[in-house]
Amino acid sequence: MKHYYAVIMAGGVGTRFWPMSTTQHPKQFLDVLGNGETLLQQTYNRMVKICPKENIFVVTSHNYRTLVSEQLPAMIGENILCEPARKNTAPCIAYASYKIHKLDPKAITVVAPSDHLVKNEETFVKGITSCFEKAAKHDCLITLGIKPTRPDTGYGYIQFIDSDVDETDKRINKVKTFTEKPNHEMAQFFMESGDFLWNSGIFVWSTKSILSALETHDPELANLFREGYDYYNTGREKEYIERAYATCKNISIDYSVMEKATNVYVRSSIFGWSDLGTWGSLYTHIDHDENGNALVGKNIITYNCSDCIVQVPKDKLVVLQGLEGYIVVESEGVLLVCKKEDEQLIRTFVHDVKVKKGEKYV
Amino acid sequence: MKHYYAVIMAGGVGTRFWPMSTTQHPKQFLDVLGNGETLLQQTYNRMVKICPKENIFVVTSHNYRTLVSEQLPAMIGENILCEPARKNTAPCIAYASYKIHKLDPKAITVVAPSDHLVKNEETFVKGITSCFEKAAKHDCLITLGIKPTRPDTGYGYIQFIDSDVDETDKRINKVKTFTEKPNHEMAQFFMESGDFLWNSGIFVWSTKSILSALETHDPELANLFREGYDYYNTGREKEYIERAYATCKNISIDYSVMEKATNVYVRSSIFGWSDLGTWGSLYTHIDHDENGNALVGKNIITYNCSDCIVQVPKDKLVVLQGLEGYIVVESEGVLLVCKKEDEQLIRTFVHDVKVKKGEKYV
Repeated sequence: MKHYYAVIMAGGVGTRFWPMSTTQHPKQFLDVLGNGETLLQQTYNRMVKICPKENIFVVTSHNYRTLVSEQLPAMIGENILCEPARKNTAPCIAYASYKIHKLDPKAITVVAPSDHLVKNEETFVKGITSCFEKAAKHDCLITLGIKPTRPDTGYGYIQFIDSDVDETDKRINKVKTFTEKPNHEMAQFFMESGDFLWNSGIFVWSTKSILSALETHDPELANLFREGYDYYNTGREKEYIERAYATCKNISIDYSVMEKATNVYVRSSIFGWSDLGTWGSLYTHIDHDENGNALVGKNIITYNCSDCIVQVPKDKLVVLQGLEGYIVVESEGVLLVCKKEDEQLIRTFVHDVKVKKGEKYV
Repeated sequence: MKHYYAVIMAGGVGTRFWPMSTTQHPKQFLDVLGNGETLLQQTYNRMVKICPKENIFVVTSHNYRTLVSEQLPAMIGENILCEPARKNTAPCIAYASYKIHKLDPKAITVVAPSDHLVKNEETFVKGITSCFEKAAKHDCLITLGIKPTRPDTGYGYIQFIDSDVDETDKRINKVKTFTEKPNHEMAQFFMESGDFLWNSGIFVWSTKSILSALETHDPELANLFREGYDYYNTGREKEYIERAYATCKNISIDYSVMEKATNVYVRSSIFGWSDLGTWGSLYTHIDHDENGNALVGKNIITYNCSDCIVQVPKDKLVVLQGLEGYIVVESEGVLLVCKKEDEQLIRTFVHDVKVKKGEKYV
């Protein structure tokens, strides 16, 4: 296990979960399920089962460094990497990979978002471990794919080739295509064909393989971060990174590498995954009362309410009557009541609030 | 004006306005219209236009003494009378009347609740002043009656005799009957007949007249408070009052005196009155936006909402979408969302909250 590493990406700002998620306090730092652990803490605790604690890195921004330290008190400070700017996943992965590679050229890494839900931890651990084993033996880039349960148009889809099965893990298949956010018709087709998986954004590879792929498929980005190699894990790392991010482009790892590389694999996984991208997706993962209400909070009393999702601070007393299919959220002194079927409007609300009432509320 | 006095009754606990109104912080101490003044402050400010400041008394309970002092900093402490127990209006009026009569046997008093709304202050002042003049000249008990605008079954109705008109104020008429909370049919009849007015619970009389009426119609109550006459306005008043209230019955001034006395008059008044007994009655007195929403709060944003009443703390950001005909109230950390047409259920909510979550919330 000593060459196993984890990179947890925790720099995102989720506005679809507003007002629970805000720029000051994004989704990964929240206990969205109301079970006492934030999504970041859950992610970290999963990783502890996969690799040594000292091999776990969190990449975030300066703004969230304190939140990360507070929520993960067992982490050593130098494993919290702060990006000077948000530049999407590729720069984050390039930076962390060069840094880890310098520490341990035999490193095998899992890279994962910090704000996703994984309900079946055991299956997750087993899946990642299997990927680690393959990545240790072969020059390959593995992504975790989720069997679609609905024709969701918000996800990326990965087509795999059934014939090219891994010798030890039949769930690992070669990737044929990546398709970002298809229309409904296409998503329906993808789901029915059985050859497509959702892209979970969780990756496994050796630092050697990902750095080699970056150098081949995105030499501009690779060069920028390779130039700092001498500085990583020294007192000059921060200074270099500040400079690198100032000129670095904004690009996803999918676009930068995965869609171009030929050694990409996907492991189909069933571990109760959700990216918790919408209130609706959270709703399906919270226990419901007999009227289909998903209530997160200890003092919520409902009368004649059904199919609602309510998320309020633990101690807040909330009495609701006569609501059907509503989202009721209170967080950081902001209250939102909105029809569940209209939740896509939340982006509009956030925009309007920002314009009318100022940044502090979003 | 020096013989003019005001007694403001501020001991009530309104639960129909929960969670805005709570036992800890009842309606009279709240800025229900969101205009910067509590109902008590509005009541006091009306009285200041009618009589000298030092002649204004507030009767409340020990629990609310601090709230009264804070909200009416211009009041002298000894004019805040604290009832040791809630015994309805007759004991309160008997106590204040004997006390004021001892200070000034020529006193003319207006007695008024502290939690009602009066929109037209000028008309109110004119009406009370006219009643003061009549009460100074004649041995009479005057109540203020409001022309009914709907067949409300929650109010008391006063039937007046049109023929017996006062010589100077044609709006003052002799009272024929009092009827408490009629059924809908009767209320409809009362309203249509034109001979009935709502009982506002605002009274004008000389202390001489009300004390004489009390001694005639409720000698038991009169005796109890007359016995303390020597102690009023001395260091021993409090001790006596504690003792008197311990044995005192619970009775309204209507039942104790007004329904029995023969020298009762009513002045029909139009000063935009409401007892603010329900959210619905408050709704009619708050400005509405173009969709019929009555919004009290500075940071409320609505999308596709209509006929709602929203009352939240000034600084609270509230975003509401897709609500029709709802009450949304946040107060003291408690949130209520309830259909306007079901507001009578609030009594049930308050009861359930008390049982399930404890007294602190109600």
